[in-house]
Amino acid sequence: MKLWDLRTPALVVEAAALRANLDTMSSALPGSRLRPHVKAHKCTTLAREQLAMGHPGLTCATVREAEGLAAAGVDADILVANETLDAARVGALVAAGHRVTLAIDSDATLGAARRGGVREVVIDVNVGLPRCGVAPDQAGRLADVARAAGLTVRGVMGYEGHATAISEPKQRSEVTAAAMALLAHAHGEVGGDIVSAGATANFDQNTVATEIQAGSYVFMDSYFGEFGLPFIQALFVLSTVLAVNTKAGYAVGDAGLKSFGMDHGNPNVAGGKTWFLSDEHITFAPEAPVEVGERVRVIPGHIDPTVAYHEMIHVVDGDEVVESWPVDLRGW
Amino acid sequence: MKLWDLRTPALVVEAAALRANLDTMSSALPGSRLRPHVKAHKCTTLAREQLAMGHPGLTCATVREAEGLAAAGVDADILVANETLDAARVGALVAAGHRVTLAIDSDATLGAARRGGVREVVIDVNVGLPRCGVAPDQAGRLADVARAAGLTVRGVMGYEGHATAISEPKQRSEVTAAAMALLAHAHGEVGGDIVSAGATANFDQNTVATEIQAGSYVFMDSYFGEFGLPFIQALFVLSTVLAVNTKAGYAVGDAGLKSFGMDHGNPNVAGGKTWFLSDEHITFAPEAPVEVGERVRVIPGHIDPTVAYHEMIHVVDGDEVVESWPVDLRGW
Repeated sequence: MKLWDLRTPALVVEAAALRANLDTMSSALPGSRLRPHVKAHKCTTLAREQLAMGHPGLTCATVREAEGLAAAGVDADILVANETLDAARVGALVAAGHRVTLAIDSDATLGAARRGGVREVVIDVNVGLPRCGVAPDQAGRLADVARAAGLTVRGVMGYEGHATAISEPKQRSEVTAAAMALLAHAHGEVGGDIVSAGATANFDQNTVATEIQAGSYVFMDSYFGEFGLPFIQALFVLSTVLAVNTKAGYAVGDAGLKSFGMDHGNPNVAGGKTWFLSDEHITFAPEAPVEVGERVRVIPGHIDPTVAYHEMIHVVDGDEVVESWPVDLRGW
Repeated sequence: MKLWDLRTPALVVEAAALRANLDTMSSALPGSRLRPHVKAHKCTTLAREQLAMGHPGLTCATVREAEGLAAAGVDADILVANETLDAARVGALVAAGHRVTLAIDSDATLGAARRGGVREVVIDVNVGLPRCGVAPDQAGRLADVARAAGLTVRGVMGYEGHATAISEPKQRSEVTAAAMALLAHAHGEVGGDIVSAGATANFDQNTVATEIQAGSYVFMDSYFGEFGLPFIQALFVLSTVLAVNTKAGYAVGDAGLKSFGMDHGNPNVAGGKTWFLSDEHITFAPEAPVEVGERVRVIPGHIDPTVAYHEMIHVVDGDEVVESWPVDLRGW
């Protein structure tokens, strides 16, 4: 299949750039130092490739992601790095022989895990982001309660999202360090082998975590593109030009609000300037003349919610579509 | 099934509010005066309900929507109200006996329609929104070329999206009127029975169009909620509270950036104030205390790209889930 044969809008990833990103991260964080986050790609095929590179574990954001991996027969040490009250679904995976560890951060989520048949947990610690996570000074107590309830506490996790959102490297590093000091303290109270944290943005700055939950590095986006990271923009949305208005200086492509996560703002057209998006269209000013029927590449502002709109990821090498992978871990 | 049994995040629509919205619009625009736009709900079951209310036609934004309706055996006069170069897919539906009319706005999209086996078209006219559409003074020429090529030209369409985005009613009405003057002029040159335009926002202001392409009225959202329209907020995302931080004054629900179209900004928590969203979480300040495990309702900022993230629409009456409809027209 050729690039030209793809229906648009289509998620397209450059094979060489993807390969380079996978290699760069695996070299920096070999083996269990990296627990790849599947939420960025929601793709079992790509998760298998990450495991094949020597990383024994995977991170999931949803129970559905863990269920999908298990249903596909993926053999990994899976961490569901968020709380859920629907823990019986995790327990069902455990009962079926899969190793799935669940984050807990309160008596309520602990109780749901226990009643749901979960056996292994990590204590999710609030390290500064106003989201889930027990207060650092309560982590030890929660671990004690969990162990008393018969759960195995494998360690701690703490997502420093307030640090990883900082584009300036030195400040990002400092806020990461402050957050990880809280996590290290909690780990001292909780015990266990796992200190799980981090992200693509600070993969080489977080030296406290035993494992980094990085996901976006595989694809990158225009937001992370400004962080000065050693990863290459690998993913685009391929769009067909539907209309050209030479007089007014714009063209229209067939990829809109239902093709892109918009929380980081408009996506960027390669070779053009984005004006605005409608549900199924992007209006942009092309730098050089374009024609109706031509294909343009659009760089998403935020990878994760972009991928979640699409059914397939097409891996391309020049004009050749070398593989097409289902985005099979969507939904909840 | 009870509301409580739903997995979250879940799209939930209030049965009575949906019924009221359908009735209000059908009373205002009976029969062929309304061509309901399926892009808002992407749901064959709901499209059938709209047809059952006496509207003979439907509007689609994508070829996939038309294919899905046809595959489900929906018998309607379908208008694909956007251009496509992939017109052979529309031609295949026509060859299979479905009535599908396609928008064209250039020699290139006309050629694609003709080569693809499309038989009926409308001339899409640019009435002021910088998007697709032929210049009004070129519409007659394009219709002549289309007829000479053997296509049936059913009339014109022109989407006044620059008018329907205006929240102030009087200004919205004036910009609508100016846009429709352009469309009426083009219609004079093109001929045909159809003058298709409009949206929920100006359903009672656009008196030039013979048919209004309204979609959002069925569900509404926080954006249209400020327009003073006679439709009720019917759709919510149901979310489970995962964490409560009383000291810091926030709670966290399990619905995030992958549950909401974000181009109109943050969704609004009923009974709370939204702080920010992460991929799978919403952090908000509750007005009254909430507990872990409680369900909260979140009102989307923009319906269309919100629905496109979800697999099912659950129709509820109080605590009862009375029906669950697949969102089966997603993708491209």
